[in-house]
Amino acid sequence: MNAPEFAQPMTADPTPSAFQARLAAAAARIETELQRRIDAEVRPGETARPERLVAAMRHATLDGGKRLRPFLVIESAAALGAVTEGAAGAGILSAAAAIELVHCYSLVHDDLPAMDDDDLRRGRPTTHRAFDEATAILAGDALLTYAFDILADTGAIGDAATRLALVAGLARAAGLGGMVGGQVFDLTAEGRYAADGRPLHLSAAEIRRLQAMKTGALLTFCCEAGAILAGTSRAERDMMRRFGRLIGEAFQMADDLIDVESLPEAAGKATGKDAARGKATLWASLGTAGMRAELDRLTAAAEATLAPLGASAATLVETARFIARRRF
Amino acid sequence: MNAPEFAQPMTADPTPSAFQARLAAAAARIETELQRRIDAEVRPGETARPERLVAAMRHATLDGGKRLRPFLVIESAAALGAVTEGAAGAGILSAAAAIELVHCYSLVHDDLPAMDDDDLRRGRPTTHRAFDEATAILAGDALLTYAFDILADTGAIGDAATRLALVAGLARAAGLGGMVGGQVFDLTAEGRYAADGRPLHLSAAEIRRLQAMKTGALLTFCCEAGAILAGTSRAERDMMRRFGRLIGEAFQMADDLIDVESLPEAAGKATGKDAARGKATLWASLGTAGMRAELDRLTAAAEATLAPLGASAATLVETARFIARRRF
Repeated sequence: MNAPEFAQPMTADPTPSAFQARLAAAAARIETELQRRIDAEVRPGETARPERLVAAMRHATLDGGKRLRPFLVIESAAALGAVTEGAAGAGILSAAAAIELVHCYSLVHDDLPAMDDDDLRRGRPTTHRAFDEATAILAGDALLTYAFDILADTGAIGDAATRLALVAGLARAAGLGGMVGGQVFDLTAEGRYAADGRPLHLSAAEIRRLQAMKTGALLTFCCEAGAILAGTSRAERDMMRRFGRLIGEAFQMADDLIDVESLPEAAGKATGKDAARGKATLWASLGTAGMRAELDRLTAAAEATLAPLGASAATLVETARFIARRRF
Repeated sequence: MNAPEFAQPMTADPTPSAFQARLAAAAARIETELQRRIDAEVRPGETARPERLVAAMRHATLDGGKRLRPFLVIESAAALGAVTEGAAGAGILSAAAAIELVHCYSLVHDDLPAMDDDDLRRGRPTTHRAFDEATAILAGDALLTYAFDILADTGAIGDAATRLALVAGLARAAGLGGMVGGQVFDLTAEGRYAADGRPLHLSAAEIRRLQAMKTGALLTFCCEAGAILAGTSRAERDMMRRFGRLIGEAFQMADDLIDVESLPEAAGKATGKDAARGKATLWASLGTAGMRAELDRLTAAAEATLAPLGASAATLVETARFIARRRF
């Protein structure tokens, strides 16, 4: 990553780069696919789709975010030679959307009063604020379940072995040893105090493990999913996992910096909350400069990981840089 | 179902019947399998399993209930000729346990303060009472996710097509058009009042739809899963779905009767709550005698559905009778 780019956040660019245009185009395709899936007619094996539940699922899912996770799925598949556009890319789009549903469910549950108790998400009321707590819990449950439904859906994505590998990988990444487990580590770390009243801090290693699970596992799987969808070798799947782990770490670090540095208006959510809660981040031990240096190191390592792919990896490399320098 | 059996609940039997012994033996096998899965070491793709989360998952899952759903999976497979015992039956046991995890997750989330707000489940504190609300939400999430992990796990269950059919069917039964959707219908029906203050009642058809989704869909899928695991034809899969729908309806009706008639000590949970909440049941329109007659009709229809299987269906027929006459 070169210094001038780093010093100039993309949000300040007067004209969008080719990368940003590509990201936006993918987000638009994902949006359409998510909408199509959530608004689908009742299918065989379903009895009815309650209007209020569908509305909450729409609220939790649509019109949201950069769609970085499905973008990683699509671009990882593309880097390994898969056709990701048009009718031939429909299966990859479906799989990418399914993984985005899991991300959206996790946000709905994390925002609940019993967890992070957030009122705002992407500048809009969180699902339990827009509806109610019970509906938010159930909308999250339905989104998670629907992700597996879409991945397993006959004919939608690749062959049976591909679909099964996606289900297995997603469940592993999202479950007790991954995303959900990371959230539990985070909650149990938060607000603990020693006998003398000092807040109990996690070690840097404990924070890294927590973050590798809470946000890293799903981002890692997005890259691996691209390899699964491209039908490539075990070695390329492992390469994508390594890349995913590095950008996952960078993503969380950038997120923690946003919380320290941004105003809520720019971030589209409450900021400064981590410190207020004594939430575990690496900022306390590394500081802003240390985290910036670490972001540089991670981005370079991510780029090096994909070197065997040459120019095919250009978009993924751009994505790694984008993740490290994002400010929102 | 013959009248004397009906008049004499099984719980009052001086010695357990062969059926009860079979149910208990299956429950013991399921318990061991659930324990093995929840207490498993960290696996490839997992980072760590937080102790508190595993403890909550154990609390929500182990030492609980009759294990009727996994029993239906196993017995449906057996009725269609599958080997369900010993090493050859290990895959069927795993699939049955995975489906039970989904049932357990649904109980954890349904019991939450934002939903049914129950303190007791099977005579013990509910998960959010024994731990806390955030942990209960996440334990539910983890149980649901783990079910798909187990079903997709390479080598554990049948071939790829079998595993994928189980994932697809379970997701469909448990999701927005099935179990979760039914819970939303139930919550939105509860406590609604007309302008003049009278409680707004659902029609009998609406109640039946709600129940077919909330409890029926998963029970129906259990029977279908047995057919999938036995590798039988589409026709036999459909037959098992029909059987499942009938016993699912009977199950809910028996459950509603328990709420009207039982003491909390005998039911192992709070009773009389449906009426107190104005919760939608068919009791208001059918009354106790009407529900008993309906239970007889459903049991006879379930038995007739399996007639083509002859003696192979004996245990399933017994199960249908057991469901209709249970008092706890």
